[in-house]
Amino acid sequence: MAARASHMIGSPIDSSTSLLAAQTHDIVRFAMGSPAAEAIPTEVLTEIAATELKGADAFDYAATEGDPSIREALLRALEGTSDETSADRLTITAGGMQGLDLACKLFVDPGDLVVVESPTYTNGSGTALSYQAELLEVPVDTDGMDVEFLAQEVERTGRAPKAIYTVPTFQNPSGTTMSLERRRRLLELALRWGSVVIDDDPYGLLRFAGTDVPTLHELAEGDPLVFSVRTFSKIIAPGLRVGWVDADPSLQPLLIAAKQAMDTCTNLPAQRLVAGFLREGHLADHLVTQRAEYQRRKVAMQESLSEHFADLAHWTDPEGGFFLWVSFDQPVDTEALFEVALAEGVAYIPGNAFSPAKRFPHDLRLCFASTAPDRIREGVARLRAAVDRLRESTA
Amino acid sequence: MAARASHMIGSPIDSSTSLLAAQTHDIVRFAMGSPAAEAIPTEVLTEIAATELKGADAFDYAATEGDPSIREALLRALEGTSDETSADRLTITAGGMQGLDLACKLFVDPGDLVVVESPTYTNGSGTALSYQAELLEVPVDTDGMDVEFLAQEVERTGRAPKAIYTVPTFQNPSGTTMSLERRRRLLELALRWGSVVIDDDPYGLLRFAGTDVPTLHELAEGDPLVFSVRTFSKIIAPGLRVGWVDADPSLQPLLIAAKQAMDTCTNLPAQRLVAGFLREGHLADHLVTQRAEYQRRKVAMQESLSEHFADLAHWTDPEGGFFLWVSFDQPVDTEALFEVALAEGVAYIPGNAFSPAKRFPHDLRLCFASTAPDRIREGVARLRAAVDRLRESTA
Repeated sequence: MAARASHMIGSPIDSSTSLLAAQTHDIVRFAMGSPAAEAIPTEVLTEIAATELKGADAFDYAATEGDPSIREALLRALEGTSDETSADRLTITAGGMQGLDLACKLFVDPGDLVVVESPTYTNGSGTALSYQAELLEVPVDTDGMDVEFLAQEVERTGRAPKAIYTVPTFQNPSGTTMSLERRRRLLELALRWGSVVIDDDPYGLLRFAGTDVPTLHELAEGDPLVFSVRTFSKIIAPGLRVGWVDADPSLQPLLIAAKQAMDTCTNLPAQRLVAGFLREGHLADHLVTQRAEYQRRKVAMQESLSEHFADLAHWTDPEGGFFLWVSFDQPVDTEALFEVALAEGVAYIPGNAFSPAKRFPHDLRLCFASTAPDRIREGVARLRAAVDRLRESTA
Repeated sequence: MAARASHMIGSPIDSSTSLLAAQTHDIVRFAMGSPAAEAIPTEVLTEIAATELKGADAFDYAATEGDPSIREALLRALEGTSDETSADRLTITAGGMQGLDLACKLFVDPGDLVVVESPTYTNGSGTALSYQAELLEVPVDTDGMDVEFLAQEVERTGRAPKAIYTVPTFQNPSGTTMSLERRRRLLELALRWGSVVIDDDPYGLLRFAGTDVPTLHELAEGDPLVFSVRTFSKIIAPGLRVGWVDADPSLQPLLIAAKQAMDTCTNLPAQRLVAGFLREGHLADHLVTQRAEYQRRKVAMQESLSEHFADLAHWTDPEGGFFLWVSFDQPVDTEALFEVALAEGVAYIPGNAFSPAKRFPHDLRLCFASTAPDRIREGVARLRAAVDRLRESTA
């Protein structure tokens, strides 16, 4: 047990108790990666609940691969998108996180090499660690994962990865998007190595600037080595815990067996709520509203950063999603800064939390999605005050 | 991947597609281990939904250890019961199945020996297999797991189990209950060997005859080696996927980290529904009604079995829960019988599905909970007709 403990994740992010507690009162919330409270269509969902949950079976077990209601509505909703798929490739999951757990359960054995981005979503890398993977961190730049670095590293060590875990679009935490060229190159390398690509794309539908890049799912054209993980957490509501996996049909029996041994099935009331939401056509309108609002918020954050941090740091310029990534030009210990910032009334996540090797001591992630523009400006000003206080106290 | 596939469960039970499909139309449902449709308090839950889901945060991420609403209501509901516990021991899970997944993730490493009952709930043993455990099947008789057989086996082989998985009360699938004496002896042996006892007790609150036996949780008096898994699936509704784990406080950080890497948190709307159900005091009344109804159904099944199978088989006499176990006195291939029975209009689960080593070719599990008494009588008569047809065709 003690030995096993060391394989668990080090820095749980999102919904950790301390962050939830920290985000009461007047704290400006840049930490959690959740949609804005006002972005969650609570009223529509409650209305749908009044009809969808009245069915005699609405609280019974669901089929492990997902309730027919949501499977049909989802297949239709994806038609013509970069994630269009078919019933034999689709498994409904308890959010994207369970999709990652399934991928690792199927593909990762103890000692296997798993590539992760650096920085990465450490709940994802943590899942790989919980299956006792060895991790290789590959740097991310403004075009996403540095695929040539990965190619050279594999050539140098002679050791091909079992799986490559990527958040290619509006990456968590950096906000950057992998270019089309790199996507093609990554698939080419994965194919050559026989590596599974875990294509985790929770934010792709939240593009508010620039032009769409095809998903790895679409580019792979059904190649069995690409395992795509999707979720409704960021586009409808995270508390529903409903997502899906898109994988080669040959994997479906294994996915069903593995999910049976995890949670039997995804909670049915939430599947019915999502099915109703899709069937009644709410998603398209909802996304239009959200994209516009998230763009407004990103712009507010960029402007505030330019106002308060131009002399101290640089940051990414995401074209969608929830996050941007701030890197200090001179060392600022963002773990030490955290407590000071909380005292000043602003919360964020320190860069170290996004690297299994703790590589980003002078960086931090800001979520611009959860906070209205005026509060964003207030929060960024508080963050600058916190940096100044920390530098004074350590000068 | 191919190698990994062999570690997955062989016979998923409950909510498999073929069984769901088979249970449409006129089929009498003795297969699935779900509460009767009329036993699920759909109306009350829908009413609670109308108020509880209106909160601004009802669809947001929940704390990984569980939403305060359900944690508080549950601690209060358990006061004075054999499962009374404290906040530092409590983690809310996505049903009992995730509790088993958490137990195995924490305690089971590849090659570890895990004891399971024979017959057992193979979704539970399947989880252990998915962590590459070696299984030891220990027979069950009318007093539950044969603990002395286990003691002798460990002495004979000199190999102590890492974990012992038991459903001690109204066992799935046999319906039998481990005696107080065996519970004490099992805890004594586990303590001596340093084995974790995975105490999976989903049916304990559904006693309709006989007298209560203290849970392993209560008998263990907080011993860190006892890991208790509970669920609302059988006493409120399985589709909610809400349960809890009761474990030593030292394990809570590990449980939170492990659950983060599984599904981030349990779906919040369902937690709020259960919290409302508990807080408004519905559970006690609901259990009184359910116990009386399940007793009526069990009696109906026993009587029908006596009428149709007295010359062919014997069966268990559960004092609660959902299941009884039928053993044919002369060989009747219950896998071959399955298709014939479906054609006759009755579904059950063959005994083999409850043994990783496929030990029960002439047994079957009947769920008496899902079906009204008159339909139970019809189903048992159909089952006898199926047996006669099978015997004719193979004579």
